[in-house]
Amino acid sequence: MNGAQSLVQTLVNCGVEVCFSNPGTSEMHFVASVDSIPGMRPVLCLFEGVATGAADGYGRMAGKPACTLLHLGPGLANGLANLHNARRAATPIVNVVGDHATYHLQYDAPLTSDLVGFARPVSSWLCESKSSRSVAADAARAVQAATAAPGGIATLILPADTAWSDAHHAARPLPAIGPHPASPDAIDECAELLRSGRKTAILLRGRALRGAGLEAAGRIAAKTGARLLSDTFAPHSELGAGRVPVERLPYFAEQIVESLAGIEQMILVGSKPPVSFFAYPGKQSWCSPERCHFAQLAHEHEDGAQALEALDRALGGAVPQPARIPLALPELPTGRLTALAVAQAIAHLTPDNSVFSDESATSGFPLAMMMSRARPHDHLALTGGSIGQGLPLAVGAAIACPDRKVICPHGDGGAAYTLQALWTMAREKLDVTTVIYANRSYAILNIELQRVGAIGAGPKALSMLDLHNPEINWTSIATGLGVEASRAETAEQFNAQYASAMKQRGPRLIEAMI
Amino acid sequence: MNGAQSLVQTLVNCGVEVCFSNPGTSEMHFVASVDSIPGMRPVLCLFEGVATGAADGYGRMAGKPACTLLHLGPGLANGLANLHNARRAATPIVNVVGDHATYHLQYDAPLTSDLVGFARPVSSWLCESKSSRSVAADAARAVQAATAAPGGIATLILPADTAWSDAHHAARPLPAIGPHPASPDAIDECAELLRSGRKTAILLRGRALRGAGLEAAGRIAAKTGARLLSDTFAPHSELGAGRVPVERLPYFAEQIVESLAGIEQMILVGSKPPVSFFAYPGKQSWCSPERCHFAQLAHEHEDGAQALEALDRALGGAVPQPARIPLALPELPTGRLTALAVAQAIAHLTPDNSVFSDESATSGFPLAMMMSRARPHDHLALTGGSIGQGLPLAVGAAIACPDRKVICPHGDGGAAYTLQALWTMAREKLDVTTVIYANRSYAILNIELQRVGAIGAGPKALSMLDLHNPEINWTSIATGLGVEASRAETAEQFNAQYASAMKQRGPRLIEAMI
Repeated sequence: MNGAQSLVQTLVNCGVEVCFSNPGTSEMHFVASVDSIPGMRPVLCLFEGVATGAADGYGRMAGKPACTLLHLGPGLANGLANLHNARRAATPIVNVVGDHATYHLQYDAPLTSDLVGFARPVSSWLCESKSSRSVAADAARAVQAATAAPGGIATLILPADTAWSDAHHAARPLPAIGPHPASPDAIDECAELLRSGRKTAILLRGRALRGAGLEAAGRIAAKTGARLLSDTFAPHSELGAGRVPVERLPYFAEQIVESLAGIEQMILVGSKPPVSFFAYPGKQSWCSPERCHFAQLAHEHEDGAQALEALDRALGGAVPQPARIPLALPELPTGRLTALAVAQAIAHLTPDNSVFSDESATSGFPLAMMMSRARPHDHLALTGGSIGQGLPLAVGAAIACPDRKVICPHGDGGAAYTLQALWTMAREKLDVTTVIYANRSYAILNIELQRVGAIGAGPKALSMLDLHNPEINWTSIATGLGVEASRAETAEQFNAQYASAMKQRGPRLIEAMI
Repeated sequence: MNGAQSLVQTLVNCGVEVCFSNPGTSEMHFVASVDSIPGMRPVLCLFEGVATGAADGYGRMAGKPACTLLHLGPGLANGLANLHNARRAATPIVNVVGDHATYHLQYDAPLTSDLVGFARPVSSWLCESKSSRSVAADAARAVQAATAAPGGIATLILPADTAWSDAHHAARPLPAIGPHPASPDAIDECAELLRSGRKTAILLRGRALRGAGLEAAGRIAAKTGARLLSDTFAPHSELGAGRVPVERLPYFAEQIVESLAGIEQMILVGSKPPVSFFAYPGKQSWCSPERCHFAQLAHEHEDGAQALEALDRALGGAVPQPARIPLALPELPTGRLTALAVAQAIAHLTPDNSVFSDESATSGFPLAMMMSRARPHDHLALTGGSIGQGLPLAVGAAIACPDRKVICPHGDGGAAYTLQALWTMAREKLDVTTVIYANRSYAILNIELQRVGAIGAGPKALSMLDLHNPEINWTSIATGLGVEASRAETAEQFNAQYASAMKQRGPRLIEAMI
């Protein structure tokens, strides 16, 4: 057994089943081991940003880590933006990066770089294996670190000689770290606050937005009248009919301020006080009312769902029926294709239990509205603001949930970042329907240009926000990457194409000409 | 005048004329300023790796820096891999990265990251502007740092409030730093070595591979019988008929060892001793003969061309005629399309004075051979080993040299990394002919798998190196990104398509089905 085999066997022992990879020479021993060691599924990606985004999508839906396999510092660098998003989502990922053999680094060969330097900003845990004999132990620690609540990126750097030299045996899983129970003091404090009669918001994140946590939050709201809120970009929410309704905070700071007006106290469950996404001259970054009192029911590494259940119990009283979202599907749209029409069709036609990898950007406002009373679904948001997450995330979600339809509504500007993900969808025959909002624009920037008070923008400046010249043909690109694609120019065409996508299985792309 | 305007005006004052950009909200003031300040050409890229690679290609050909404009940490992260390549090429780049307003960082908004941490591994100089009043001075220092010999990446981080707040005025250029003259002692030492009669190689890099430096090297070789060598991947070489011949070191370590057998002393001109690109079990990383004596005629930051001229003078004697590469064009190929046939056609048909952005990977061996006696051309190599450089580099080279034909021979695996560059070629109507070697494979890895001794690779492992499933249709992708494209299945088809590309202007892609 060599170091690479001890690594892969250890990962499998620890429940890691999928490897999103773009390997190079220094990772060939890892690659060679996947045939001899059962239980690891390698998924090839044409670009590392696809691999890391897919690992994020997998981790969010599977609730356990995938691993990556990246090639040296530059391969890692290509994956960093989506690791940034994954870090913001607190997704567990075992991020395996090959490096030159330890004795080769002294020569400063062309691919040598400060790999640790690249990895540090996104990693909650970081280890360079020093010997083939320690790789297995390091891998077990990496899984433990990645899954330590709330979840994080454990980067394991694997020098080539630690992969090809002899190892003893694989390692067994280490005990899980957390999630820890919330402090009883915090639960008492929050119960007290809720009994005060003051206007209260409860800002939910993490597991508190799903399953038992969401149900408990619904009961608390029914008992106390507290508002349930979620961040604008929550990693993983359960939405749609039958679920407890949660208000998603709006995007722009002044809208958040307006939404929170009158709130006297805010209970944070795995969340932080809401702030502006960007700073703007003369506008405030802090979005809560000045005298708002904050209490932290559960920190990020604590069990927010359990904390909500305990808080519900502490409040006592009869068990109420929480509010439920009613099913209310919009009519199918007709006529001109707009972002609203796309949203109506998606809400009308998407089946139960689908998963949304949502990077709909400026087209997302009507989509959120229409989907709010649509059939129940899971929603994955762009957590870190680094565009180009949606397509890779959909790859990972589809691999984690092979029996569920994955929908990927995506702005065209962001989709151009990591369009290589389409190839992996075709290769793995993933059941993902991608909708490209082809508005030929970094539309958000046309709004932001005004909001930041950047005056004097003329044709040169405005051309920097415009994607008309030349027009990207997404149907042609998707076909070139092996994905069946079509273009919709009217609502009727979109309805028909989306309906057919919902009936078939496998990857599909619709270019919505809004 | 605000900080952004003072920045752009300072860059223009310092000779920076082109900005390869993918801006976001925090960079809107920079964007808005390009209309009011004449002299800065913004070039929009759909992905930051395109912007940084283009800045590299521009810097190599223009001999002065372009700037980038990147959006926060994740935008920078997307550009790091090609900045790694640029760092290895010692290309001058002013790398401008917007950040959140200084007072906004405390809130840890979603896009906040350790921007300095991301930037440090690739930057030779790094500065976070602290005030709108210092931005102009910081920008002048950035240009000075980027152009300090041998050239490097000067990263200037521009918090949004330093862009939008008031500034005094733009700054003027600072004095250039280097290149410094080589040490007279080093010149004397090398002259002594060359008079010794021992078998000598001179390994050239940087300016020593072009113009007066190359000519001087040719005269030295003619006087002394020394072999002239260049690295396998030199940033910028002048090649082809009429030039002084320089042997390019082969790629694999054992080939380098064989090539250097018998060399008793090596004179380094802006270069380092040659080493293996990767480490392999049981193979040496160091490639020079054991007792080879090394002398450094010029360090990287010194003027290698001037040093060679001084060395030539120190050697004295009559002025010899250096050897010259004869023009010897291969016949046009017929029949089956192979990498060799592609190389023959390119060598036969490419006009004088073209620029090659070469990421031909495994298909590059016959191309180097065929181009060695072709018409004179400039050659830009993949310096840092991070694939996905070729297309962006071609963008930058074409903008630096609008009157020259740019040829981009590219492996399909690497081209998939930064294919968004095709869109910028179309947008800017760049005269780039891209040839995709469609072998549907990470072909180098099939070789490396054996070389690293990774045994036991079965179908799962081999599928990680294979790009057949699904087949990428490059013609379809290029068309989708606005570039005229065609597919060549035979040598005759390739000849006709390439000949027509050489006659027209503007971007063109040929998918060579080898």
